[in-house]
Amino acid sequence: MPPASADPSAAWLMRLGDTTLVLGHRLTEWLSRAPTLEEDIALANLALDLIGQTRALYARACELEGGTRDEMDLAYCRVEPDYRNPLLVEQPNGDFADTMARHLIFAAWATPLYERLAASSDAETAGIATRSGRETAYHLRHAGEWMIRLGDGTAKSHARAQEALDDLWPYVPELFDADDLDREVAASGFGVDPSTLRGAFDAAVDEVLSRATLTKPVERFGQRGGKAGRHSEHLGHILATLQALQRTYPEARW
Amino acid sequence: MPPASADPSAAWLMRLGDTTLVLGHRLTEWLSRAPTLEEDIALANLALDLIGQTRALYARACELEGGTRDEMDLAYCRVEPDYRNPLLVEQPNGDFADTMARHLIFAAWATPLYERLAASSDAETAGIATRSGRETAYHLRHAGEWMIRLGDGTAKSHARAQEALDDLWPYVPELFDADDLDREVAASGFGVDPSTLRGAFDAAVDEVLSRATLTKPVERFGQRGGKAGRHSEHLGHILATLQALQRTYPEARW
Repeated sequence: MPPASADPSAAWLMRLGDTTLVLGHRLTEWLSRAPTLEEDIALANLALDLIGQTRALYARACELEGGTRDEMDLAYCRVEPDYRNPLLVEQPNGDFADTMARHLIFAAWATPLYERLAASSDAETAGIATRSGRETAYHLRHAGEWMIRLGDGTAKSHARAQEALDDLWPYVPELFDADDLDREVAASGFGVDPSTLRGAFDAAVDEVLSRATLTKPVERFGQRGGKAGRHSEHLGHILATLQALQRTYPEARW
Repeated sequence: MPPASADPSAAWLMRLGDTTLVLGHRLTEWLSRAPTLEEDIALANLALDLIGQTRALYARACELEGGTRDEMDLAYCRVEPDYRNPLLVEQPNGDFADTMARHLIFAAWATPLYERLAASSDAETAGIATRSGRETAYHLRHAGEWMIRLGDGTAKSHARAQEALDDLWPYVPELFDADDLDREVAASGFGVDPSTLRGAFDAAVDEVLSRATLTKPVERFGQRGGKAGRHSEHLGHILATLQALQRTYPEARW
């Protein structure tokens, strides 16, 4: 599968943007369905953060690529294999514990990623990363607090939080896989090698799980493919919903 | 909302085709998920019957209209308000009892409808109705047998079958509403006035429910709108999935 863009820096930013887009879309599926009104609004705000990050990442990628496409083209006019998000973020929302476990894993990965990306050789990218890292640090706290409440709650909430973690853990290794593109942009000083983020991820997750009285799952195997454009059945359905308006009215502008 | 076609006979056939299309699509969502392999294949066959009926109904409607559109245009290139199916068929699959209760209601309505439509003044439409009525008579038997098994089964299966019926019953009245279009095509001898089908529907349903030891819900109110193009939130998601391929590759041909 060729990279998402001929420009390595653009391709790398697009991959990150695909990740925040897909997760942001998943969170919007909660709207009007969260357990409390406050949490409904909180989930909407998390989603808005991620959609905002997507827009900034895509826009910068398009500039780096030469301006032949814009962020709307990237979000609405590509097909499944063009998206390079890790499989984690396209997994279904499941119950509230599943969504919070998925978000804890995402935020514990994205926060150190953005922290390091804030030192990117590209000032524009560094600026996006600084702003985005502040947001995901809050996401990490929010998801962490929920996992603690659920894990250190009733027997039922504990069991469901543990099950959510166990179900999602196979999607963790892909987040830290470094491929040629990762190594290339890390070597150039533009981007970050994700394999260097595992220590920070484990520290953040371990602290939450300890307070939540939850057990860190054993890493037996990893579900991989999204970063290379090979997706689970879920992405097609996400894109069908996400792109329906644009595909139905191709000339529509916002 | 104007009729789906300027030709009343075409508009009326399209409405029936919309109904079989949406229900057929819903049944395909069961594929690989049914309780047994045999039932998985049975549901696929029911879905194929309905998609086949859709194709025949749409094709004849397009001919009557003058041939400016074909059945692919009707299935894949219209937007929500253009579809005129009753709300019943766009309701989610729910559990297996929900799907079978929905199908019992549909088949107990469609079977006498097709029986009478077999006497249509249009020989082509009469032929479609004769073939389709044989199929839905089998659907009625299949769904009826399942409702009997579930209703006259365990306490749990009985409770879930009863709940499914209760939840879906508000969508029954719309099936028998006659609007100006129904009355016009019935008066011309082309179509059928659905308000005349209620007796046959009740007889078929009552027999099943009696053997199933289930209680016929009291008809307190009706959820209406689909026949006039005003749909529940569900149709948009159905169309997003149903139309994704065609919308993404507008020039594609089968």
